[in-house]
Amino acid sequence: MTVDSGNETPAPKVPAKDPWELPDVSGLVVGVLGGTGPQGRGLAYRLAKAGQQVIIGSRAADRARATADRLGLGVQGADNTETARRSDVVIVAVPWEGHGETLEALRGELAGKLVVDCVNPLGFDKQGAYALKPEEGSAAQQAAALLPESRVTAAFHHLSAVTLEDPEVESIDTDVLVLGDSRADTDLVQALAARIPGIRGVFAGRLRGAHQVEALVANLISVNRRYKAHAGLRLTDV
Amino acid sequence: MTVDSGNETPAPKVPAKDPWELPDVSGLVVGVLGGTGPQGRGLAYRLAKAGQQVIIGSRAADRARATADRLGLGVQGADNTETARRSDVVIVAVPWEGHGETLEALRGELAGKLVVDCVNPLGFDKQGAYALKPEEGSAAQQAAALLPESRVTAAFHHLSAVTLEDPEVESIDTDVLVLGDSRADTDLVQALAARIPGIRGVFAGRLRGAHQVEALVANLISVNRRYKAHAGLRLTDV
Repeated sequence: MTVDSGNETPAPKVPAKDPWELPDVSGLVVGVLGGTGPQGRGLAYRLAKAGQQVIIGSRAADRARATADRLGLGVQGADNTETARRSDVVIVAVPWEGHGETLEALRGELAGKLVVDCVNPLGFDKQGAYALKPEEGSAAQQAAALLPESRVTAAFHHLSAVTLEDPEVESIDTDVLVLGDSRADTDLVQALAARIPGIRGVFAGRLRGAHQVEALVANLISVNRRYKAHAGLRLTDV
Repeated sequence: MTVDSGNETPAPKVPAKDPWELPDVSGLVVGVLGGTGPQGRGLAYRLAKAGQQVIIGSRAADRARATADRLGLGVQGADNTETARRSDVVIVAVPWEGHGETLEALRGELAGKLVVDCVNPLGFDKQGAYALKPEEGSAAQQAAALLPESRVTAAFHHLSAVTLEDPEVESIDTDVLVLGDSRADTDLVQALAARIPGIRGVFAGRLRGAHQVEALVANLISVNRRYKAHAGLRLTDV
């Protein structure tokens, strides 16, 4: 099989919707679970800077509020439960180790919400990073299994927290791969990603294809070591 | 874990070798197993056009020779056995279905050779492409298990055969991710990839990280469908 295989499918009978025609998400409240960690903090900072209303969630509300105060930009802090309840879109940026437990406890609050999983299950040994394969297939599929009443997508895996948090970096040279089973939901997450200057949100398949996108972070870590870089990803010809 | 985790490792005691200092591979003979398929044919065409001596391998020598004659550029054709024996570097571009069997039969001829696996184990159903997970972890790791006396690497997974074969395309806007456990071998494959105008060969980790690189082709197929593209991949900040 080659990368062209998808082009063998017959043309659809109705003209396809323009894939770059994305909804206006500027009015949505975005919660970031694990928002006190580097990845969550970096995403909160960038989205708030772009004008999004952001709530940082943490197990401890006071830690979340302290991080929110440091970020400024109107960012608020709350415990995970309140963050989930008050947000339209909830980004999951908790460590893989606490992923299942955190989401299971929030099942009620996350019902009906758009959940964006950006967790990368990785292990480390003397040879560097390697991908872990969750029983459900991926972290995102674990989220979908634990949150049957939520709309689960996956995105924001490959962003460098160092770059996200660096106020000197005006524009981030990377694409965000967005995965999910509902077009309306992935369109919305693509639009959210595109709020950050330099970033495009690109649809990259159904949730069942999330494992390799999560796991690719292990390779990017190897790239970063070899090239002393904070590598990002761009899709060409798109 | 975030993509920055690799940067936490302590600095090495000796200055690191420049990762872009790559060997001269212009004198190496490159065999392409499965060279009559679109991917193999496209790679053979591009490498020969760059001045590399290329032998196309196929189960049937006459089919290989017919393809080689059509390509011109000094490309030769032979059966897989002779191709393996006469080549310094052997690119494996056979269908996943015949991968293990083909390699097992060539164990002797491939001993000591540099093998570059570019096979993507994929399945297809009504929802599109999905990744298959070989028992050994990946196609490349299966090759390594079957060829204990060869130097096995993985590369060239994400190139569009349509683009490779299009004579109108002068430069290919993509990076080739190269994986392997020996620096000398991955350097050599990176140099080979860089023979093709537009392409950079970028080290992307050990062979154990090959599954997600192979599997990502399923996502690129989704991208190609949605955006009517022949998507490639670039690493930024590298």
